[in-house]
Amino acid sequence: MFKNILDNLKNNSPLVHCITNYVTVNDCANILLACGGSPIMADDQREVEEITSLCNALAINIGTLNERTIQAMIKAGQAANAINHPVVLDPVGAGASKLRTDTTLDLMKKIQFSVIRGNISEIKTIADGSGRTKGVDADINDQITIDNLQNAIDFAKGLSLETKSIIAITGAIDIVASPEKAYIIGNGHPMMSKVTGTGCMLTALIAAFCGATPSEPLDATAAAVCVMGYCGERAFEKLQLIKGGTSSYRSLLIDEVSKIEYDALSGGMKVEIR
Amino acid sequence: MFKNILDNLKNNSPLVHCITNYVTVNDCANILLACGGSPIMADDQREVEEITSLCNALAINIGTLNERTIQAMIKAGQAANAINHPVVLDPVGAGASKLRTDTTLDLMKKIQFSVIRGNISEIKTIADGSGRTKGVDADINDQITIDNLQNAIDFAKGLSLETKSIIAITGAIDIVASPEKAYIIGNGHPMMSKVTGTGCMLTALIAAFCGATPSEPLDATAAAVCVMGYCGERAFEKLQLIKGGTSSYRSLLIDEVSKIEYDALSGGMKVEIR
Amino acid sequence: MFKNILDNLKNNSPLVHCITNYVTVNDCANILLACGGSPIMADDQREVEEITSLCNALAINIGTLNERTIQAMIKAGQAANAINHPVVLDPVGAGASKLRTDTTLDLMKKIQFSVIRGNISEIKTIADGSGRTKGVDADINDQITIDNLQNAIDFAKGLSLETKSIIAITGAIDIVASPEKAYIIGNGHPMMSKVTGTGCMLTALIAAFCGATPSEPLDATAAAVCVMGYCGERAFEKLQLIKGGTSSYRSLLIDEVSKIEYDALSGGMKVEIR
Repeated sequence: MFKNILDNLKNNSPLVHCITNYVTVNDCANILLACGGSPIMADDQREVEEITSLCNALAINIGTLNERTIQAMIKAGQAANAINHPVVLDPVGAGASKLRTDTTLDLMKKIQFSVIRGNISEIKTIADGSGRTKGVDADINDQITIDNLQNAIDFAKGLSLETKSIIAITGAIDIVASPEKAYIIGNGHPMMSKVTGTGCMLTALIAAFCGATPSEPLDATAAAVCVMGYCGERAFEKLQLIKGGTSSYRSLLIDEVSKIEYDALSGGMKVEIR
Repeated sequence: MFKNILDNLKNNSPLVHCITNYVTVNDCANILLACGGSPIMADDQREVEEITSLCNALAINIGTLNERTIQAMIKAGQAANAINHPVVLDPVGAGASKLRTDTTLDLMKKIQFSVIRGNISEIKTIADGSGRTKGVDADINDQITIDNLQNAIDFAKGLSLETKSIIAITGAIDIVASPEKAYIIGNGHPMMSKVTGTGCMLTALIAAFCGATPSEPLDATAAAVCVMGYCGERAFEKLQLIKGGTSSYRSLLIDEVSKIEYDALSGGMKVEIR
Repeated sequence: MFKNILDNLKNNSPLVHCITNYVTVNDCANILLACGGSPIMADDQREVEEITSLCNALAINIGTLNERTIQAMIKAGQAANAINHPVVLDPVGAGASKLRTDTTLDLMKKIQFSVIRGNISEIKTIADGSGRTKGVDADINDQITIDNLQNAIDFAKGLSLETKSIIAITGAIDIVASPEKAYIIGNGHPMMSKVTGTGCMLTALIAAFCGATPSEPLDATAAAVCVMGYCGERAFEKLQLIKGGTSSYRSLLIDEVSKIEYDALSGGMKVEIR
């Protein structure tokens, strides 16, 4: 599973345009290089259309949004749509402020996203705010567990149908869903939540994976989620050997992404399809 | 000493809103996670009041200030004041430009800070510029040493009285003062000055510690200063084992914060009260 | 060779004002500290003239340029020119968008740069765009190799004459040229291209080296390029011992800069003069 996705990544060296937050932007750039892609960060309205047209994919992350960058996100997203480049949305903190919620919904109106990746709270905010999936999300708790997993999968598939985007809900258990099919991914490690930007980095990876295989956004997204989770596990094993802390863990995580090989990944993937 | 502060930190997992510079923002976020807190960075005027109300504390750092973010700092600070959340100021480079000095003084007029942390030059600039502590600071050299320590303590206590803020002056010897009581802290390592952002990271830590124990800002600030200095010493010991340089030191420093235990800290604290 | 440059760096501890992108700004600050200098990042128009006058050199990097920061770059550059401080330009992505190309050319009109450092594509864009070196660059491929090296050297010398700036073209083979003399530098490692910001970091280093030895910008620039490349080689040796990946490599690279000694560098330099 996912062998073609990893092969395409190696062969195509996707260039990813990121309009992202200034907190984790360096990690996003470095993980893109680590996976075999390349980053370009550009957020001035006067250049984003040109820049995005040079790239294979666009990642939009609202982590430190402001008036100026929101306008750039819209322009870049519409330009990427016009030439059918994958566009990935990370609605960081949607639900935490009206600005973030409104901006997320506005971006979704103006841009067709290939993939939306967030935690369950952010994705629920999208579903509630767009007024599209009333009722369904009422059954989803803030933590996806084995008990509510089927509800969460149904919710993700429904939202995917309505938004025409692959929906990736990440947490202890990850769900990556199209309207018809969902990957349930059990890779990852709790230590990942002790490092800032693991979500942002994953979003950047998803953009790279989709940029290298634009025809299969569901598989590309699921593969990226697997890689991130698997590397999180491997990094924790290494961390124990050196008795390190959270900063070493961050570095080991990116290291593992830079050393990923399909055979090892294949043996370590914890993936179910429903 | 400080056991309750560390316990509260673990139990309360404080959420810290940071309006900070883009140079060291990633390290600030990671050290907040390392200590057991969580970061939120947000600097758009339209959301800072909402964001800060979700948090336990606010850290304002003027390291790369501009028109847009200054306005956000004021709004956020006033909102935090209105709900009695601790607000910590890091007047990075106050004295180096008129903009920084004026902004610092303006922020101090408009916001009641729980804690102000800076190096001796920055804190002297505040004292001079506010016109409040004339004369006293004339006795303070740019480096606090054993010879001028009592003068510096008196200066810090006086400034604390006048500003109604805990004053933390950090350097080779650290002073954390309320009007009546000062902690003199001898932890730390010269290598900390070879890494960018150790001051900014400490400011973020102080905000987390105060957010977890808002009723005791003096002790919370002193504890944070101790933790940072102690971890700086531990990190240097580890660095020698791996024969690393300044970048490894940065990583080891955050690692140590993520592994801090009260018992070890308690044995390593170099604290005097005057 | 370059002993005086390294000595001056140690003795003068140059302070470098950077107006740079938010992707790699932390690495730039840390490498400046690692080499023995100090960073100040400031990009508000109201303070850049004052800040740059406190410093020994200014580095301008257009990696994430926008309206606001472009104005700050011009003000800072002109202020630095007025007091004869070295100013270094990194035209990141010149050629990738009209905004970047136009901004680069506009900065070159308004500011006299001591050094311009870029990859061959960026430097060719400058030459083409300024309309000064027609024809010459037609012989330069996008990769400098042994076969086209002499053409590239002639091109760099010609551009140096026309721009009155030292021209540093970095890649697998580095060229640092004045109108009369070029250093050809063979240090470096391919792994450096797998870490974001090695170019930006080098630009910051060049500013520090020039700030410490303002009278010899050619030698200062060549020495900085040697140090970066040599440290890249040393870091790769260390990386193999720990079987690390790209993130560890980034850290080891800065570590090596922080531990640089002239004697070791002298033995490892691969420099030719033409």
